[in-house]
Amino acid sequence: MKNRTLFGLIGLICMALTTISWAQQRSNPVVSPEVLADNSVIFRLKAPNAKSVRLLGTWLKDLRNTVEMTRNDSSVFEAKVGPLPADMYEYRFIVDGIPMLDPANNVVTRDGSINESRLILPGPQTQLYDVQAVPHGTLSAVWYPSPTIGMDRRMAIYTPPGYDKSGKKYPVLYLFHGGGGDEEGWISRGRTNYILDNLIAAGKALPMIVVMTNGVPNVAAAPGERPAFAKAAPGAPVGIQSMTSGKFETSLIKDVIPYVEANYRVIADPAHRAIAGLSMGGYHTQQITNANPTTFGYIGVMSMGLFDGPMARNYNKEEHIKQIQALKQAKPKLYWIACGKDDFLYDSVTKLRALYDQQGMPYTYRESEGGHTWVNWRLYLMELAPKLFK
Amino acid sequence: MKNRTLFGLIGLICMALTTISWAQQRSNPVVSPEVLADNSVIFRLKAPNAKSVRLLGTWLKDLRNTVEMTRNDSSVFEAKVGPLPADMYEYRFIVDGIPMLDPANNVVTRDGSINESRLILPGPQTQLYDVQAVPHGTLSAVWYPSPTIGMDRRMAIYTPPGYDKSGKKYPVLYLFHGGGGDEEGWISRGRTNYILDNLIAAGKALPMIVVMTNGVPNVAAAPGERPAFAKAAPGAPVGIQSMTSGKFETSLIKDVIPYVEANYRVIADPAHRAIAGLSMGGYHTQQITNANPTTFGYIGVMSMGLFDGPMARNYNKEEHIKQIQALKQAKPKLYWIACGKDDFLYDSVTKLRALYDQQGMPYTYRESEGGHTWVNWRLYLMELAPKLFK
Repeated sequence: MKNRTLFGLIGLICMALTTISWAQQRSNPVVSPEVLADNSVIFRLKAPNAKSVRLLGTWLKDLRNTVEMTRNDSSVFEAKVGPLPADMYEYRFIVDGIPMLDPANNVVTRDGSINESRLILPGPQTQLYDVQAVPHGTLSAVWYPSPTIGMDRRMAIYTPPGYDKSGKKYPVLYLFHGGGGDEEGWISRGRTNYILDNLIAAGKALPMIVVMTNGVPNVAAAPGERPAFAKAAPGAPVGIQSMTSGKFETSLIKDVIPYVEANYRVIADPAHRAIAGLSMGGYHTQQITNANPTTFGYIGVMSMGLFDGPMARNYNKEEHIKQIQALKQAKPKLYWIACGKDDFLYDSVTKLRALYDQQGMPYTYRESEGGHTWVNWRLYLMELAPKLFK
Repeated sequence: MKNRTLFGLIGLICMALTTISWAQQRSNPVVSPEVLADNSVIFRLKAPNAKSVRLLGTWLKDLRNTVEMTRNDSSVFEAKVGPLPADMYEYRFIVDGIPMLDPANNVVTRDGSINESRLILPGPQTQLYDVQAVPHGTLSAVWYPSPTIGMDRRMAIYTPPGYDKSGKKYPVLYLFHGGGGDEEGWISRGRTNYILDNLIAAGKALPMIVVMTNGVPNVAAAPGERPAFAKAAPGAPVGIQSMTSGKFETSLIKDVIPYVEANYRVIADPAHRAIAGLSMGGYHTQQITNANPTTFGYIGVMSMGLFDGPMARNYNKEEHIKQIQALKQAKPKLYWIACGKDDFLYDSVTKLRALYDQQGMPYTYRESEGGHTWVNWRLYLMELAPKLFK
């Protein structure tokens, strides 16, 4: 019995490690990704039976251009990439047409339904959202009632270091994800809590609360956090119709903000209320601030422009111009538009700016390199947060 | 430009969906897992070039017995399993020897370095940890200083519904993960927050705070939440040595409990302080309560027994018996031991019970079906929580 117990106990401590070993050492005794001194990266996958392994990574300007990995003598497929700019990226292997995580990499990040392996390269840019030896805020998953949408819903709330004990009131940034995402996108890929920790510690941003909602009104929460067998109400908008139904925007004003201002120590005035979003969240930001021009003192539209095509079923230019005039009258302290030069929505941003110029609506424009990527959205948050509430 | 903008905007809303489509519709236009009325489950993977696809699921009594999936006419590999008891399970596909997630399933759960697809089957047991229409507590990721270990570390804290506004003080359960896990295991797989929500709403458990620590003292946090380029201090214990070094146990007493009691509204006495853990966490629970017999009124040891083999380098039976006698004198209100009949640590539990019997140390023993699984650990939490603080 002693031997069996001993065997069991060794098994206990090692069980998880064994399972990993089974995957990594028996099937994949490789280091991947291996980051070289110049921030080149070697990816490896042991796949003795695979015909083709390709690499899909978010550093690629066009995601259709996957990288062919080459097989070496020991059935390991390899690809060397870079040097890449120091930043955080996501990647997958495409093994004979099937996308998979890197089994040798234990860090997986998620944007909506997309789970991918994380690559992080050392450098100044990375430090801005790495976990540093600075005071950390608290990140909470909070359920709130949404009578507008007809269900309890989940949001992520960052409270800054010292919040619990300070007794002070804080300004709030409402921060929205993009199409296909959810309330965890700005955390898992956006690194919002660590960005704020680092900016606050450096004295670059004021301590603030950040509220990250779920912008898809026909679900309550991120995939693993929804009622497991929930069905949408009959007739409820689904897919794109759900995201552009206007219900989320209404719920932000009627449900989210009142909940936050009743349950957190918040300075509840426009000068201490900011709103920003990326892509679909930039559309939501516009919709909300167009309909509520005096509610927010700071407005950030990231990687999103004018949404006036046939997809925008209710777009009415005359109405929009009235809204822009009302917003102009409200004089927000900042209306910030950011877009990457390679963003596939660049033209829509140009069009929005032209309309604002025509209407005399002031805004600050930030054009970055790159495209419609989390590299840019983290950058934009790092640039926007220091401009808020000052 | 209008057409390009429209194209872009359609792209925007659909981008994430497109990426998924690319994976699921072009490579895997299948439904997986498909749950049938009797809780049989069909798993599917489209893999035209694969020679062999096997299925590894946590419902299997022996994880070495993977299930062969069979190829149909359209290159889809299929396996039908069950009917299975209504519960939550994890699974992976092994494609030509390489483990991968199910690309058709967007819910991934994690235990330490192991990412797997989730299967959840409807039934009474599942409802106990599903997201129900009941008041929800708040789940927070909290960083705290650990002078004992020499770094800031991360823990997950559940505060019950109403905590923020009640002004009341609450009892606390300290809850530990197993070998290879981290502070998110009891959330991602344990469903602790939803279990507590449901038990509290049903009047079965008292409102309580649950503190879920990271029991591996040479890391600060779960993989994606650690400093990205942190290196262990020279000479710091690694691997098994780290987990059994005693440092975590000391830090729980010296760092974690004082932090929680200083920063949360806690009833800070043994009658309102509980401790429990699974597997390695059951070892930690024993180590902490043996060394601090009067600190906890409620003690739960799950799927773990006596750790006295050569791996337990410092085990001293004479000392252990003294500790058991001191614990017996301290008269905890509950000393609860739970183990599955098929658990590979069953013999170690039998041995621990025999020693307690011999020493006249009272305990309550719960023997369940099944083995060393999250199905059991969720069950144990659902049974233990109602016994606490009453």
